[in-house]
Amino acid sequence: MKPNKIYRNVIRYSKGEIQHVNDLIVTEYPVTIKVNKEELATLVCTPEYIQDMVIGFLASEGIIRSVSEIKEFWMDEKEGFVHVTLPSFNELYQKFRSKRYITSCCGMSRQGFYFFNDVKTVKYMSDTTLELSFDDCFRLMKEMQESASTFKDTGGVHNAALCDKNGIILSRMDIGRHNALDKIYGYCLQHDISLDDKVIVFSGRISSEILLKVSKIGCSVVLSKSAPTELALQLAEELGITTVGFIRGDNLNVYTHPHRIKELKG
Amino acid sequence: MKPNKIYRNVIRYSKGEIQHVNDLIVTEYPVTIKVNKEELATLVCTPEYIQDMVIGFLASEGIIRSVSEIKEFWMDEKEGFVHVTLPSFNELYQKFRSKRYITSCCGMSRQGFYFFNDVKTVKYMSDTTLELSFDDCFRLMKEMQESASTFKDTGGVHNAALCDKNGIILSRMDIGRHNALDKIYGYCLQHDISLDDKVIVFSGRISSEILLKVSKIGCSVVLSKSAPTELALQLAEELGITTVGFIRGDNLNVYTHPHRIKELKG
Repeated sequence: MKPNKIYRNVIRYSKGEIQHVNDLIVTEYPVTIKVNKEELATLVCTPEYIQDMVIGFLASEGIIRSVSEIKEFWMDEKEGFVHVTLPSFNELYQKFRSKRYITSCCGMSRQGFYFFNDVKTVKYMSDTTLELSFDDCFRLMKEMQESASTFKDTGGVHNAALCDKNGIILSRMDIGRHNALDKIYGYCLQHDISLDDKVIVFSGRISSEILLKVSKIGCSVVLSKSAPTELALQLAEELGITTVGFIRGDNLNVYTHPHRIKELKG
Repeated sequence: MKPNKIYRNVIRYSKGEIQHVNDLIVTEYPVTIKVNKEELATLVCTPEYIQDMVIGFLASEGIIRSVSEIKEFWMDEKEGFVHVTLPSFNELYQKFRSKRYITSCCGMSRQGFYFFNDVKTVKYMSDTTLELSFDDCFRLMKEMQESASTFKDTGGVHNAALCDKNGIILSRMDIGRHNALDKIYGYCLQHDISLDDKVIVFSGRISSEILLKVSKIGCSVVLSKSAPTELALQLAEELGITTVGFIRGDNLNVYTHPHRIKELKG
C-alpha cells in the first residue's frame, strides 16, 4: 500500500532565500469499487483503512445493510481496485443513487433535501440516553485534535473521531471529508459497536453531507471545531441530531436539539 | 434566490456564560441540473452565480464545448432545478462519466489517474508566455484573501480568483471546492476570456480534482495558501501546470514547472 505521505523535492523561497528542500507531501489514492464486477464508484482517499472505508461507503449508500452480506472482498493494491461480491446488486440503485428526492413538509415552503438513497439510510434519533456537559464537549474536541497531530505538518487533512463520554474510541483522518466518516462507519459495522451512546467529533465544517453521514452511522451528537451550514441544521432538526459547533478555546455554539447537553436540559 | 447567509438563533456558551444569540449561518443550496429533461447531477453550492457554475460544470464534464451549444437555460429557483436544452446529449456520457481511466506510462509503475471525461477535457499547457515573480505570487495571494474577507465571519468557505499579473479579474466563493472554480470557468466561457496569461489563486488544498479543474479551465499556474497532494503534483507535471503552494507570510513552495517563476527560469 502507498504511504500516507512521501518526500518530494520542492523549491522553497523563504525570507528572500531560494532553497531546495525535501518536503513531506500528503498522498491521494484512488480506490475504485467494483460490486459484482460492475464499477460502482471511485473514492480518492488517504491510503489506510481501505476495507473499513469501502464497507462504510457501501452501507452509507444503502447497498449493504450488514457486513454478513459481503461474500467476497479483495483488493488489487497496484491498480487500486476493490472487488466486492454480493448475493445481488440492485440495478435500480445505479439509476437512482444520485437522483434528487424532494420532500414536501406539510405545505411548508422549507426545502428539504436528500438523495433517494439517503431516504433509505438516514436514521432518526429520538430517544438516545446520551448526555454531555459543556466540559465534555471541550475535552472531546481537545482529545480529537491531539490524536490528529501527526498530520498537522502536511496541512489540511480532515479528522474524525468516534467517542463516548469518556474519550476517543476510534480516530481516523483522510484528505476526503466523507472518507474519514466512512472509515469509522465501516469499523463499527465490522465490530458490532453500539452507537447509542456515541458522539462524532469532526475537524471541519458540518455540511449537509456530513450531517447525513452522521445520521447514517447512527450517532445522535456531532461536535465540530468549525461551523455548520443552514441546510445541515435543517436536517439535524428533522433527524434529531444535536449539533455543537465552533468549539474553540472556552467557546462553543449549540445549534440543534440542546436537550442532550446537560446544562441546557429543559 | 436564497441569501448566502442567514441569521439563526444559537445557544452560545462563552467563558462560563450561556447566551441566546442571533448568529450568521452560511447557506447551502442544492442545484439539480437537468439536460434535455434527464437529471444529470446535483451540486450543493452557495447560491450565487448559479448560471456561471452550471455552464462551467457542463464544460468541465465535457458535455458542452462552448456556450453557443446551449439552446435553452432556465431555472426553477423554488425547487432548485436548472433546465438546460442541448441539440444532443450523448448517452454514453452517463455511462462513462465516473468510470476510471487507467493510464499506462511507458511501463512505469506510476499510477496515473483520470476519469474518462477528464481525458477529453484536460488541456496540456506547454508554451504559455505567463511569467510571475515571487512578489507577484505573494501579492496575488494577498489580494485574493482580501477580496474574500466578507465571508470570514461564517468560517470555512472556499475562495478562488482568476488573475493576471496585474491583479484579480474575478473572485468567487463557495462552500463547495469545485463550485468556486466552475463559477470562474462558466464566466470565462460566456465572456470569451483568453486564459493564456491567467492564474488561478485558490484558498484551499490543491487536490487532484482541483488540479484537473485548473487544467480544464486552461490556466497554466495555480497558487494556493495550502499544500498540494502528491497525486495533484503528478498530474501537474504531466499537464504542464506550475503549482505554487503554502504561500504564507514571506514563504512559498514551488512544486512543479518552475520555469514560469521569473527567479527560477533556467
